[in-house]
Amino acid sequence: MADSTPKVVDIHTHMYPPAYVEILESRSTIPLVRSFPGSADPRLILLEAEVPSLGVAAVTDDASTTTSTHVPGRPLTKHYSSLDQKIHFMDTHNIDISVISLANPWLDFLSSEESGPQAKSINASFSGMCAQHPGRLYFFAALPLTAPLPTILSSITEASRLPYCRGVILGTSGLGKGLDDPDLLPIFRALAEADMTVFLHPHYGLPNEVWGPLASSNYGHVLPLALGFPMETTIAVARMYLAGVFDAVRDLRMILAHSGGTLPFLAGRIESCVLHDGHLVREGKVTAERRTVWDVLREQIYLDAVIYSEVGLKAAVDAAGSPDRLLFGTDHPFFPPLTSDEDGKWESVTLNSEAVDKAVGQGTEAAKGIMGGNAVRVLRLAGE
Amino acid sequence: MADSTPKVVDIHTHMYPPAYVEILESRSTIPLVRSFPGSADPRLILLEAEVPSLGVAAVTDDASTTTSTHVPGRPLTKHYSSLDQKIHFMDTHNIDISVISLANPWLDFLSSEESGPQAKSINASFSGMCAQHPGRLYFFAALPLTAPLPTILSSITEASRLPYCRGVILGTSGLGKGLDDPDLLPIFRALAEADMTVFLHPHYGLPNEVWGPLASSNYGHVLPLALGFPMETTIAVARMYLAGVFDAVRDLRMILAHSGGTLPFLAGRIESCVLHDGHLVREGKVTAERRTVWDVLREQIYLDAVIYSEVGLKAAVDAAGSPDRLLFGTDHPFFPPLTSDEDGKWESVTLNSEAVDKAVGQGTEAAKGIMGGNAVRVLRLAGE
Repeated sequence: MADSTPKVVDIHTHMYPPAYVEILESRSTIPLVRSFPGSADPRLILLEAEVPSLGVAAVTDDASTTTSTHVPGRPLTKHYSSLDQKIHFMDTHNIDISVISLANPWLDFLSSEESGPQAKSINASFSGMCAQHPGRLYFFAALPLTAPLPTILSSITEASRLPYCRGVILGTSGLGKGLDDPDLLPIFRALAEADMTVFLHPHYGLPNEVWGPLASSNYGHVLPLALGFPMETTIAVARMYLAGVFDAVRDLRMILAHSGGTLPFLAGRIESCVLHDGHLVREGKVTAERRTVWDVLREQIYLDAVIYSEVGLKAAVDAAGSPDRLLFGTDHPFFPPLTSDEDGKWESVTLNSEAVDKAVGQGTEAAKGIMGGNAVRVLRLAGE
Repeated sequence: MADSTPKVVDIHTHMYPPAYVEILESRSTIPLVRSFPGSADPRLILLEAEVPSLGVAAVTDDASTTTSTHVPGRPLTKHYSSLDQKIHFMDTHNIDISVISLANPWLDFLSSEESGPQAKSINASFSGMCAQHPGRLYFFAALPLTAPLPTILSSITEASRLPYCRGVILGTSGLGKGLDDPDLLPIFRALAEADMTVFLHPHYGLPNEVWGPLASSNYGHVLPLALGFPMETTIAVARMYLAGVFDAVRDLRMILAHSGGTLPFLAGRIESCVLHDGHLVREGKVTAERRTVWDVLREQIYLDAVIYSEVGLKAAVDAAGSPDRLLFGTDHPFFPPLTSDEDGKWESVTLNSEAVDKAVGQGTEAAKGIMGGNAVRVLRLAGE
């Protein structure tokens, strides 16, 4: 892209390739896809919290008793798996470039044997989609994290050679024990060496009990999505910080989904709790040379701009130390409009683009950066 | 206070009266106080997460095997129960007025029979402490939430008649089912009618499993305190919002601990998740007349200024809509300095007062308000 027209780039936008939908259709436990009477589209059920007071068994064994107002999950519309629909969505919202990624829970649920071949196939499928629209699509690869380490490492090498791949999307479970697991260090090192950015994205939320006895029947999906997701991300990155992962792999670069979960707001409290922790002080871990959470935020972390408010986006920019570390995203195909045409403008998108304009000023260099310039620079989106 | 000198008011400051410490000393399960070899002060153990990979049984049955570097909990110093020490702390930090409250977990663990009389006794003890320093001390009462409703309601009436009582401190468990429990509505109504402000404070955090297998041995208390506490508060207030508690009790006024947990940062996401929730839309709950999270934040909620960063405090002020809804606090006696004299200045306090100066400008009307003027106005601290 030699021209200097500011580009709009969406770095948080998901696709379920048809082969992935087939896997979900074949499953009998969450995550899964299945049809229900009274629901036109098949339903995509991703979270335990989405199954109102039933549990998985009830969903799979006795679906016929489910009433239409309590069909679990969300409609699996063409927005999830149609590339044409993705391009239409981009055109509708004046998005020049999308960096697409498989949606949660990625390949976390596959067996050790399945995940390597499935990662290869799905990353090839993303690569093929990007090749159909050169310059408009790039992607974050999926990793076969349930496979043996050599398989994971070779999948990183393979993905890094795919021309439109710019990094990987990563959940918070890692190899099953979270992202502070020392066994992940070779994987983080391989990603850093391959110049692959890690897009950290939540899926597991928090244990259902924290939402209380009324949540599943009364509050829809609000609590697990609005609070569980960002809290999960915050916990994951705080665990990485405390385990010293960012110091051990100084070239690791991460984009945190949903503007860092709640990290921008809580970074000060994390710092204070470290300074005032008897155990850490006694162990000699609170030294003057220590890099603070703020240092890591400003040296190794980028934040997407998917926070739906001026207040949140301002805090994210402040915490990042500069608007140059914020990257616009839409979270498409999630959060479609419920009371207007899905082929038109999505309010979930305009809430985020308006937040950028309000937080840093419409048309400013900062806004142009957040809306696309930063992504072009950070993810090298000016060519194959 | 007829003079116009700006007052500094600490609205987040805890006391354990000696009678409460005696209750904790008599207990064999958390919360408890007990002595350990190799630790000069008795230890106060409040959270399951504070007992590194042992569990309560090991703490109580086999304390002799506990090494000095892994003594659970925190030292129960004179800062917890000495009124002289509280006044010394106030003088050291130029705090004119403190609104003291019992620390977590309050009376949540008492039996139905015990909690009424204990609440009466502990509130009388707080009242007595305030009377010893007229004009310098006020308090938030403790409620006997495990007692029958009539006992709870009469304890509200009794507390409201105590001259220095200005509200109640409340945890997130309510009557055992959380703060969205409809059985709490008569209690919220009684508090609002008595003009008692509710200071909402966390204690239970999140289930230990979310911190991962390394947390208890490697990260001290950082994760449950830095993240568990504010996330608990956020979940509690979001559940109240979704249950319609703020609409049902329009005169209810709450101060949220730790600047609202993470509510200021996540309010936009909560709003978006409500707007995009199929269940809530189908049930007709997403109306144009609906009060948004922002409305409730700006009409019924105050935030303390205990967030340890300029970034966080700015977001809290932005979310509140005005610096007039922020109230300075210290969280004394928690987070004492570990590498300097406990009788001197506490860094945990200066982190918060400096955040106020940086966020709204030292010496401005906004800063004076946050540091004390707002508390004097909101909590009527100009007399008995």
